[in-house]
Amino acid sequence: MKLNFKNSAIIIVLVFLNSFKIFAQEKVEQWNRFEIKLQHHNKGNSFNDVQLSAKFFNSDTTFFVSGFYDGNDIFKIRFMPQEIGKWNYIILSNIDSFNNKKGSFECIKATGKNHGIIKVSDTYYFKHADGKNYYPFGTTAYAWQHMGNELQEETLRSLKKSGFNKVRMCVFPKDYTLVKEEPIFYPFEVKKIETDTKGKKVFTWDFEKFNPLFFQHLEERIDDLAKLGIEADLILFHPYDKGRWGFDSMPNDINLKYLKYLTARLASFKNIWWSLANEWDFLKAKTVKDWDLLTKTVVKNDPYMHMCSIHGSTSTYYNYWKPEFTHVSIQDEAPVLNSYSAATLRNIYKKPIVFDEVGYEGNLKSRWGRHSPEQMTHLVWNGIIAGTYVTHGETYMFHNEKDTIYWADGGSFKGTSWKRISFLRDIVEEAPEPLFMADISRDLNTASAGKGYYLIYFGNEVNESWFFNLPKKNGDLEKLKPGTKFKVEIIDTWDMTITTHPITFETKAIDNYRFYDKDMKDIRLPLKPYIALRITEIH
Amino acid sequence: MKLNFKNSAIIIVLVFLNSFKIFAQEKVEQWNRFEIKLQHHNKGNSFNDVQLSAKFFNSDTTFFVSGFYDGNDIFKIRFMPQEIGKWNYIILSNIDSFNNKKGSFECIKATGKNHGIIKVSDTYYFKHADGKNYYPFGTTAYAWQHMGNELQEETLRSLKKSGFNKVRMCVFPKDYTLVKEEPIFYPFEVKKIETDTKGKKVFTWDFEKFNPLFFQHLEERIDDLAKLGIEADLILFHPYDKGRWGFDSMPNDINLKYLKYLTARLASFKNIWWSLANEWDFLKAKTVKDWDLLTKTVVKNDPYMHMCSIHGSTSTYYNYWKPEFTHVSIQDEAPVLNSYSAATLRNIYKKPIVFDEVGYEGNLKSRWGRHSPEQMTHLVWNGIIAGTYVTHGETYMFHNEKDTIYWADGGSFKGTSWKRISFLRDIVEEAPEPLFMADISRDLNTASAGKGYYLIYFGNEVNESWFFNLPKKNGDLEKLKPGTKFKVEIIDTWDMTITTHPITFETKAIDNYRFYDKDMKDIRLPLKPYIALRITEIH
Repeated sequence: MKLNFKNSAIIIVLVFLNSFKIFAQEKVEQWNRFEIKLQHHNKGNSFNDVQLSAKFFNSDTTFFVSGFYDGNDIFKIRFMPQEIGKWNYIILSNIDSFNNKKGSFECIKATGKNHGIIKVSDTYYFKHADGKNYYPFGTTAYAWQHMGNELQEETLRSLKKSGFNKVRMCVFPKDYTLVKEEPIFYPFEVKKIETDTKGKKVFTWDFEKFNPLFFQHLEERIDDLAKLGIEADLILFHPYDKGRWGFDSMPNDINLKYLKYLTARLASFKNIWWSLANEWDFLKAKTVKDWDLLTKTVVKNDPYMHMCSIHGSTSTYYNYWKPEFTHVSIQDEAPVLNSYSAATLRNIYKKPIVFDEVGYEGNLKSRWGRHSPEQMTHLVWNGIIAGTYVTHGETYMFHNEKDTIYWADGGSFKGTSWKRISFLRDIVEEAPEPLFMADISRDLNTASAGKGYYLIYFGNEVNESWFFNLPKKNGDLEKLKPGTKFKVEIIDTWDMTITTHPITFETKAIDNYRFYDKDMKDIRLPLKPYIALRITEIH
Repeated sequence: MKLNFKNSAIIIVLVFLNSFKIFAQEKVEQWNRFEIKLQHHNKGNSFNDVQLSAKFFNSDTTFFVSGFYDGNDIFKIRFMPQEIGKWNYIILSNIDSFNNKKGSFECIKATGKNHGIIKVSDTYYFKHADGKNYYPFGTTAYAWQHMGNELQEETLRSLKKSGFNKVRMCVFPKDYTLVKEEPIFYPFEVKKIETDTKGKKVFTWDFEKFNPLFFQHLEERIDDLAKLGIEADLILFHPYDKGRWGFDSMPNDINLKYLKYLTARLASFKNIWWSLANEWDFLKAKTVKDWDLLTKTVVKNDPYMHMCSIHGSTSTYYNYWKPEFTHVSIQDEAPVLNSYSAATLRNIYKKPIVFDEVGYEGNLKSRWGRHSPEQMTHLVWNGIIAGTYVTHGETYMFHNEKDTIYWADGGSFKGTSWKRISFLRDIVEEAPEPLFMADISRDLNTASAGKGYYLIYFGNEVNESWFFNLPKKNGDLEKLKPGTKFKVEIIDTWDMTITTHPITFETKAIDNYRFYDKDMKDIRLPLKPYIALRITEIH
C-alpha cells in the first residue's frame, strides 16, 4: 500500500498527539483533497467494526464527513475544503486512539486549471465553484478502468486530445455483447471461485469486506481524469451483469453499505458526479422505492452536493423533479431530433438537461449503435441550441481482435464526430453566456447567449441563402432594438470552418416578432447541411 | 327563483319531518345530480353565517358534501351518486331546523348517453365511469356564457353540430383585445358602481356576498353542455381583467371562499373539469404557493375527484407531477409540431397530456391566433398520433360588427379545421383502444391502438408511395409476428376521405425492428400532404 497523496498533497506532516500518528497535509488548495491517514490494528472486520468520522469547521461552516477503512490497518478521512483559510477538525471514532484527535490545516487559493466542483447555475446551467461556466461535452466509456492497464493509458491519451470534459463510467465491471473482459479488480473480497458445469466462473463474495485495491484503482483513474479537466460521471449501478458477478442484484443492505463506503471514499473528489444507475429500469431487482432510498443515501453522505442524477432506458424518465437530482440525465434520442423538443425538457424540469444517451456513432446492427458521425454531431448541436447538453459515444465494431469499442472499453476514437464536438465546445465556450432559445417555442433554431449574441443552426436543411433576421424576443432579456448592428459568421459545423461575412447588418422591425436587415440584405450560404451562423453585435 | 331540477329531477317529493320541508328527488340516475333544497330565513349574511353539509352513505361508501346558500332563503346540498342502490343522508348544520335531518333516495342505472364522470384510465387516457373511452376533442370559448343570450344559444347550436366534446370556458368575465362585452351577471353583489374621470366603470364588490344568479346561469350552461355530451373545462381564474372588475386580484381569503362556494355548487355536475387558471403565470397577484393552496382547496372540496389541472402561458409548465393534477393541460405549440415531441411529455409526466392551447386557427396579427386551418388540423393529428390530445380554437377577425370571435365569444365557427377534427374524432373512437406510439422514440409517426391496429400519419410530407412496413415493437404489447395479414386504408385527413386499398399485405421480418410486406409491396399515395394510413389486421 503506497502512502502517497498524488494530487492534493503539498506537504505531508506527522502530527504527534499522545504519541499517536496522524498523517495529513498542512496546506491544501480549495477543492483539492485533504486526507487524514490513521493506523490501527483491529482484530475483527475493520469495515464493520470501526466507526470513524470527522467534523471539519472554519469560522462559519461545519462539515461532517465519514472515514473509511482502506486495508492494511490504514483508515482514512477525506475532506474537500471550499473556502480558503484555516480549517480545524476533530476525529470521532469508537477507536480510542482516534477519538477526539484534533488538527487543522490551511486551505489556499486554487491555482492553474483548478476551478473547483461543479454546481448548478441559474436553473439550467453548470458552473465551477470559482464561477467559470462548465458546459458538459461528455463521452461514454462504461468499463474503461476495468480493462488492462495499457488500454486504460490509451483511453487517457485519447481523452486528452479530445474536447470531452465528462466521461460516463461504471463502478462495477460490465458484461454485455462485445464486452466480456474480466475486470482487473473486484469490489469485494472473494470467498471462493468455482466453475460451473458450463465452465462459467461462479463467484462467492464476502459482501462484508470491500477490496480496497479496487477502489484505490478507481480513485487513481478519477484523479487521472481530473488532471485532464474531465468530470467522472460515475455510474453506481447498472444491469450489465447477467448473473456473472451479481453486483446488479446484491441485497439492499449491501447496496446501502456499498454506497456509504463509496461516498466516504469519493465525495471529496472534486470531479465526481453521481449517476445512480444506467438503465435503472432494467435492474429488475430494484423498485422505484429502492432507487429513491439509494439516491437519498448518496446525497445524504455527500456533504458537497456533487451533481447527481439517474439514467433509464430509452424514453424512460425518472421523477427528476425530486430534489435529490441536480440535473436530468436522459436516454432518449427523440427530443434531440430538433432543438425545440430538447428545450421543452428545460421548461418542464427547470433543471439542467443532459441527454446522456441519444444513440452512438458507430456501425453496429443495433439501432442504438449506428448513428452516422453527421447524425451524432447534429444531435449534439440540436441539444446545444436548445440550451441543453448531449453526450457522445462511439460503437464501431471491431476490425481485428486487438480492436476495442470505445463506448465500453475506451481505447482510441475511430469515429469522426468527436472532432466536431470539440469544435462546437470551443464555440460554446467562446460565447459570453450559456445558450438558451431566444424565442421559445416560436423560433425553432435561434439560440441566444445573452445580449448581442446569437447562434442559429439550420440542422440538415440545405439553404441557398438566408435573409438576415432575428427574433425580437430574447428570452427574459431586453428585447432586440431597431438600429442594432451585427456581424455574421458562417459556421460549417462539419468542415469545422468559421467564415466572417464581410457585410454589417442593421436591424429593422418588420412585425412585432422579427427584425430583418434595414435593407433586407441576405447572405449566400454553402449548399450543404449542418450550417450554423454566429451573429454578434458590433458596437 | 325557479325551483326546478332541469336535468336530474325525476320526482320531487316533499318530506315532512318535524314539519320542516325538504325538497329532494326520490330517484336519481348514476352520476346525475341529487339535490336537497331547504328553506330558512336568516337575518344576517347567509353566505357566511350558515354552515351546511351532509353525509351521504350507502352500504360501503361515505361522502361528505358541502351545501351552499342560493339566495332567497333557499339553501341547497348537491350530491352525485355513483353507485346504484339506496343512498342515505344526514344533514349537518348550525341551523337547528336543518341539523340532523335524515333522508334517502335511490340511485338507478344510467340510461342513454349518460356515461358518467370522466376518470383517468391506464395512466395516459380518460374513460367515463361506465367504462366508455373518452377522447377529449376540445374547443375554446372563454367567455361564451357571459355574452348575450341569443349568442349563447348560437354557440350551443354550433357546438351541437361540431364534434367537440370539451369546451374551455372561464367562470369570470373576460376583458381582452377584441373582447370588451360587459357580462350579463356578476359573481358578487355590487356595493356600488362609480364612473372614473376617464368614463370607466369602477365596481365596488361585496366579496362577502355571492350573486346566486351568476352561478345559476353558469350551471344552466354547464347542464346545456352536458346534454350535448360536452365536458365543461371550467377555468377558475384568469388574467384577462386588467383592473376592470378585479376578479384576478381578489384577496386570498376571498379566492378560497369563492372556490369553496363554487365547488359546493358544481362538484356534483358530472361534466365538470377544474382548470385552476388560464395563463396562471400572468396573474401577478398570485404566487406558485398560492396556486398550490388554491388547487388543494378545489381538490379537497370535490369528493368525486373531477379532472383537475392548471394552464400557463406559452411553454410555462406547472409542476404537473403534483398529485392534485389528474392530467397535464399545457399551452405550448412546439411539442405538437411532431408526434414524438408530444409523446415525450407522456413519458415524462405519466399522466394524460392535453395541449389545451397550441395557437388557434384564425387571421389575427398575433402569432397565437393565425394558424391556417391545415396547420390547426395537423397539430391535432400530431397530438393524437402521440397518444395525447390537442384542443382547437378559432380566432377569425370580425367581418362586421355583429361578428364574433369564437375563441372568446362563441357564436358560429368560421374556420374549417373543426370539421376535420370531427372526422378525426370518429376515426379515434372507432379504434379498439386509445392510441400510443408503437415504437417510442424510434418510429416517429406510427401509432398503435392495441394488437392489429395502426394509424400512420405522414404530416406535411408529400409521398408518392409507401412500402408497407410496421415496427416490430408495439408498445408493451406482444411484438408483431411474421405472416400477419393487414388491410390498409388511405385517409385524406383534409378532404376527409377513407379509401380502402384493394391489396392484402403480409408481414415479413426484415431486421430486428421492421416488418415489410413479404413481397415488398408498396402503395401509391395521393401526392398531397396530411395523408394517414389505417392498418388493421385481417383474420
